Amino acid sequence: MNVIALVGSLRKESYNMQLAKTIQERYRDRFTLEIADLGSLPHYDQDAELEPGEEVLKFKRSVKEADAVLIVTPEYNWSVPGVLKNAIDWLSRVDKVMIGKPVMVAGVSAGLMGTIRAQLHLRDILASAGVQAKLLPPGAGNEILINQAANKFADGRLTDEATLQFLDQVIERFVAFVRANA
Amino acid sequence: MNVIALVGSLRKESYNMQLAKTIQERYRDRFTLEIADLGSLPHYDQDAELEPGEEVLKFKRSVKEADAVLIVTPEYNWSVPGVLKNAIDWLSRVDKVMIGKPVMVAGVSAGLMGTIRAQLHLRDILASAGVQAKLLPPGAGNEILINQAANKFADGRLTDEATLQFLDQVIERFVAFVRANA
Amino acid sequence: MNVIALVGSLRKESYNMQLAKTIQERYRDRFTLEIADLGSLPHYDQDAELEPGEEVLKFKRSVKEADAVLIVTPEYNWSVPGVLKNAIDWLSRVDKVMIGKPVMVAGVSAGLMGTIRAQLHLRDILASAGVQAKLLPPGAGNEILINQAANKFADGRLTDEATLQFLDQVIERFVAFVRANA
Amino acid sequence: MNVIALVGSLRKESYNMQLAKTIQERYRDRFTLEIADLGSLPHYDQDAELEPGEEVLKFKRSVKEADAVLIVTPEYNWSVPGVLKNAIDWLSRVDKVMIGKPVMVAGVSAGLMGTIRAQLHLRDILASAGVQAKLLPPGAGNEILINQAANKFADGRLTDEATLQFLDQVIERFVAFVRANA
Repeated sequence: MNVIALVGSLRKESYNMQLAKTIQERYRDRFTLEIADLGSLPHYDQDAELEPGEEVLKFKRSVKEADAVLIVTPEYNWSVPGVLKNAIDWLSRVDKVMIGKPVMVAGVSAGLMGTIRAQLHLRDILASAGVQAKLLPPGAGNEILINQAANKFADGRLTDEATLQFLDQVIERFVAFVRANA
Repeated sequence: MNVIALVGSLRKESYNMQLAKTIQERYRDRFTLEIADLGSLPHYDQDAELEPGEEVLKFKRSVKEADAVLIVTPEYNWSVPGVLKNAIDWLSRVDKVMIGKPVMVAGVSAGLMGTIRAQLHLRDILASAGVQAKLLPPGAGNEILINQAANKFADGRLTDEATLQFLDQVIERFVAFVRANA
Repeated sequence: MNVIALVGSLRKESYNMQLAKTIQERYRDRFTLEIADLGSLPHYDQDAELEPGEEVLKFKRSVKEADAVLIVTPEYNWSVPGVLKNAIDWLSRVDKVMIGKPVMVAGVSAGLMGTIRAQLHLRDILASAGVQAKLLPPGAGNEILINQAANKFADGRLTDEATLQFLDQVIERFVAFVRANA
Repeated sequence: MNVIALVGSLRKESYNMQLAKTIQERYRDRFTLEIADLGSLPHYDQDAELEPGEEVLKFKRSVKEADAVLIVTPEYNWSVPGVLKNAIDWLSRVDKVMIGKPVMVAGVSAGLMGTIRAQLHLRDILASAGVQAKLLPPGAGNEILINQAANKFADGRLTDEATLQFLDQVIERFVAFVRANA
C-alpha cells in the first residue's frame, strides 16, 4: 500500500511534519508513506491549470497513483494553512485526482484544541464537488487531534505512549478502510 | 480614505478581479483602492516569519497603512482559495496588522451560489485571534454575493445595473463603517 | 424499502413538507415514506433520556427500523431549525439509532440560496460521534437545494419539470446507496 | 444593567446552568441576570408566529428589554442543542428582538473541547439576517470554553480559581462592551 502525506506546515521542526515522519517509520510494514513537498508548488492559477508545470504535474501523479492520502496539518487562523488549501486546489481541477480517494486527517497543536476548527473546514473542503474524497468516518475515535504537543514529542518524533497506542488503532482502521475502498 | 483589495483569483480575466477594478474606478472619489499582488507572496513559513523578505514586508505595510481592507474572492472547493488564505496567514503573524481593521467581503461566481460557502469560512478566519478584523455586519443586505457572472459582466467590468445599484448602497455603508471605526 | 422523513418545518403549507409528500407519492413504488411528527417531541432533556416517554420511544423505533432517513428542511438563521436539531438530539443518545444509517438531505427555500448554509451545518451534525450517519456523497449532483420555491410548487406539490427530473436521478442514486449500505 | 441568560441544557444539574448561576451570583453588583425558561417554549411554527402565545411573548419581551444576552450552552452533536436554536428561532421572527443586542457566549463541557464546535455554529446563527447580534469579539481571550467540568465545579457552582479569575476579566470586558453598545 502506498500513501502520500500532505503536511500543512513548512516549518522545519514542525510537530505536524514530525507526526508524518513518525507515521512513516512506525507503520513502514503496513504502507510506504511519501511526504509531498507542498512548498514547491506555485499558487494555483486557472490560466495555468492546463499546463501547470512539472512540479504540479509530478505532485498530481503522486496523488493519483497513491492508494490513499494522509493529511497532517496545523490550524492557522481557525482554518487550514493557505499552502495546504493551495495544494488541494491544484488537485481539484482538470484531472480531479482526489475523487474517491481514501483520506485520513490528523493534526497537532501546541495549545489545547488540537486543530479542531481546521478539521471542520477541511471536512467541508474534502466533500466539495471537485474533491469528493472518501474520508475515514470521524466517529469511533477516528479523529486525530493531538494537543499540547510540547509534552508529547521528543527528538523529532511523537513519543507519548498513550497517543501512540491510540494512533496504532486509528491506523489499523485506516488500512482496513483503504482496502475496503480499493 | 485608502483601501487595499485582496483578490482571491490570479486568473487574468477573473470576474473577481473585474469586480475589484469596477469598485476601484466607480468609487474613486470616495477612496483610493490599491489591489495587492497576492501571487507574488511566498508560501507562509513560520521559520521565515521574522525575516519574511521584501514582498511580504511591503504587503504587510500596505495593509497596515490602509484604512480598510476589501476582500474579493471566488470560492474554491467550498472555501477560500489557498492564495488568499496564505496572504491572511502572513498578515496574522508577528506584526498582526489585521487586528481591528475594517473589512468588507465580496464574491463573484459563475454559478448560482455566489461564493456563499467561501464567505462562511472567511467569517471564521477573520474572527480568529490573529486576525480579529472588524467585519461589516452581514445583515441589512451587506453580503455581496454576485452569482451568474456571465450575465452581469461585460468588457472587463461589472455592468449589471441592479447589481451596481446594490453595490452603491453597500459601499456607502462600508465607507460610513470605516469612518466610525477610524 | 422503508424510509422515514424528518421535516424541519411545522408550517402546514411548508414547501419542505410539500417536497416530502411529493417524494412520498412519486417514488411509492421504490420505497414507503413515513413522515415523522417532529412537533410532537418534547425538548431533549438529559434527565429524561433513559425514560423519554412514548412519543420519543415511538419516534426512535421508527428510525431504527427504517432502512434510511430523508431529511427535508428549511434554513432558519443560517442553520437547521431547532425542532429538527431537537429530533436529532433525541436520536443521538442512549440507543443511538442513527449510527450507520443511510441519509439523504434536501431543502427548499423561497430565496436564491436553497438552504445551503443549513446543509453545511447539518453535514457537521450528521458526522458527529453520536450520529455518524452515512450521508449520500454530495458530489455528482447529489445536493438537493431547491430555490425560488414559489415558481416550482403548485397545489401542494413540487411541479417544476426540470427539478423533478433532477430529483428522479438523485433518488435513483439514493436507492442504490441504501441498498449498498444495507 | 439587566442581562438575560439563555441556557442550552435542561438537565437539572447541568454544568452550563451551574455556570449561569455562578455568573448570576458573582456579578450581582454589576448586573441582574434573569435565566430564561427555554424548556417552556413550544417548537417554533411559522403558522403561529403572529400569535405565538403568552410563553413566547413573555420570553421575547424579556429579551427585548434586556441590555444584553448571555448564552451558556453545551455542545450536542457538534452544534447547539435544539432547544436553544428553537429559542433563537422565535427571537428572530416578526419582532426581531436580537438585532443589535450585545451577546456573550460561554460553554462548559465534560470533555476536552469545551463546546468549541457549538460556538462556531452559534457564531453563524448570531450573524444571520434575522438575528444580527453584536457578539463580544472572540479575540483577546473572550471565548469562554470551560472543559473538563468535573474538575472545576463543586456544590453546584464553578469553583476553579483560575477559571473564575479568567471569567472576571471577560465579564469586565463584556460589561464595557454592553455600555459601549447601549
